Amino acid sequence: LRALDGITAVLIDMDGVLYRGNIPIKGAARAVEWLRKQGKKLIFLTNNSANSRSAYARKLKRMGIPVRKSEIVTSGYATALYLKKNYPGAKVYVVGEKGLRQELKEAGLRIVYPHCVEEATHVVVGLDRKLSYAKIAVALRALLQGADFIATNADATFPTEEGLSPGAGATIGALVGCSRRKPRVTVGKPSPTMVKIAMSLAEAEPKETAIIGDRLDTDIAVGRKLGLRTILVLSGISTSQDVKSVSGTGLVPNFVHENLERAVFG
Amino acid sequence: LRALDGITAVLIDMDGVLYRGNIPIKGAARAVEWLRKQGKKLIFLTNNSANSRSAYARKLKRMGIPVRKSEIVTSGYATALYLKKNYPGAKVYVVGEKGLRQELKEAGLRIVYPHCVEEATHVVVGLDRKLSYAKIAVALRALLQGADFIATNADATFPTEEGLSPGAGATIGALVGCSRRKPRVTVGKPSPTMVKIAMSLAEAEPKETAIIGDRLDTDIAVGRKLGLRTILVLSGISTSQDVKSVSGTGLVPNFVHENLERAVFG
Repeated sequence: LRALDGITAVLIDMDGVLYRGNIPIKGAARAVEWLRKQGKKLIFLTNNSANSRSAYARKLKRMGIPVRKSEIVTSGYATALYLKKNYPGAKVYVVGEKGLRQELKEAGLRIVYPHCVEEATHVVVGLDRKLSYAKIAVALRALLQGADFIATNADATFPTEEGLSPGAGATIGALVGCSRRKPRVTVGKPSPTMVKIAMSLAEAEPKETAIIGDRLDTDIAVGRKLGLRTILVLSGISTSQDVKSVSGTGLVPNFVHENLERAVFG
Repeated sequence: LRALDGITAVLIDMDGVLYRGNIPIKGAARAVEWLRKQGKKLIFLTNNSANSRSAYARKLKRMGIPVRKSEIVTSGYATALYLKKNYPGAKVYVVGEKGLRQELKEAGLRIVYPHCVEEATHVVVGLDRKLSYAKIAVALRALLQGADFIATNADATFPTEEGLSPGAGATIGALVGCSRRKPRVTVGKPSPTMVKIAMSLAEAEPKETAIIGDRLDTDIAVGRKLGLRTILVLSGISTSQDVKSVSGTGLVPNFVHENLERAVFG
C-alpha cells in the first residue's frame, strides 16, 4: 500500500513538510505538483496565526509551489471562520499579529481596540512577537468582564535560526496566569476545530482524507482523533526515535517517510 | 481574648492593611506605634517583588509609619535570601522589576544579562510591568538549558486605580506556556517560604506569632499552614461575605476585624 492510495483529499502541514523557516525542503515542490496532477484536493495547513493566507501563498510561490489562497488554512483563518459561523456579531480584542487581525477583518468580524475594550465579546489570542504588559492588561480587562477566551493554537514554541522561540503558548499562558481562566476553544492542532474546517473546505470524508505532518503531538494526534490516514514525515520536528517512543499510543502514524517526496513517490 | 494577647511577633501584610495603593488606611499608623510601645516584634510583609525594601521604608515613612528596612520582607528580598542560603553561587536571569534586581544584588547574587543568558543557573520571575516578548524569549532559552525556575510570588492580579492589573502570575504564565515547566519554588504567600524567613528574622515560634492580612487565600492560608494566629482585616480584598463562604475550610481566620486599628485596640 502506498501512503496516498485511495485518498482524495490531502491536508499538508506546511512548516517542516514544505519548508523549514525560509528554506524549502528538497522535492516538496515536485511532490505537490504531482499530487495536483493526480487530481487530489489539497489543503495547506499551519498552526501559525501570525501571517495571513495571502502571505503564505506568496511564500509558497517564492518556493516554486503555486497555491491558491483558498487552499490555505491557518489557525487564524480557521478561528475567523469559527467565530463567523458561531458568533457572527462578535467584537474581538486580539492579542496576536497583523495576519490574524487581517483574517478576522476579512471574515467580517469587528476588531475592538484597547480604548474601547469594554465592548469586546471575545478575546482571541495567538502568537504575538510584540507581546507586552500593556496588551496583557487590556485583554485581562476584557476577560474579567466576561469576554469569551479563544486561542488560535497552543504551540509552546516554534523553531527559529536562534533556537526555539516562544509560541502562542506564551501569550495564552500570560492571560491564564492573570485571569485564572483557560481558553474555552483552541482552534489549531491537535484540537480538531481547524482540521475539521479544512476537511469541510475540501468536502472530504475522514476515510478518504490523509494528513501529512512533521509532528506526532499535533498533526498525527489530530489525524488519529478524526479517523484520517496519518503520514509522518521526518523532515521537521519528530524523529524516528520519537516514533518508537510513542509505540502503542494514540500517536502512531499509519506511514512514516523521510520527507514529502518519499511519501508521494515512495 | 484580644487578637494579639500572648503574641510577641506580628507579621503585618502591608497592602490592604496599612494602605491601599498610595492611600493610607485610617488608624494604621497609630496601631503600629502602639504595637511598638508594647514591645512586639514587627515584620512588614508584601508579596510584591517590584519594589525594594528601601522603597517600602520610604513609602511607609511618608504615611507616618517609621519602619526600618530590616523590618521589611518583600517576596523579592525573601527570594534573594532563599537563593543566597541554598545557591550562593547562583547566576540569575531576572524577569521582574528594578526592586527585585536590587535585592538580589544586595544579597551578593550575580545577575545575568540577556547577551550571556546561557550562563544563567536560575530564572527568577516576578511582577514585570515592562514584560515583553523579547524578555520571555531570553528566559525561555535559559529554562530550556536547564536553569532552575523560581517565582517570587504567584499573585494573579493587583488592584490599581484602573481596576485589576496583571500580577506576577502573568509573567509566570507566559514562561510556563512556552517552556512547559512550572516554578520549582514560589517564595511569596501562600507558599510558606517568605513567611518562614520573616519568622526567622523575628526569631519567633509559630505559637507566639500572629499574621495580619487582608486576604484569606494568601495571608490566612499561609498563617494556618504554619500554625500562626491569623487575623483578617476587612480593609482590603477579602470581605465578611468571603469569610462566611470559607466556613469549615482551612481558610477560616482566628480573628476578623474591620481594620488594623480595631484588631489592635478592639
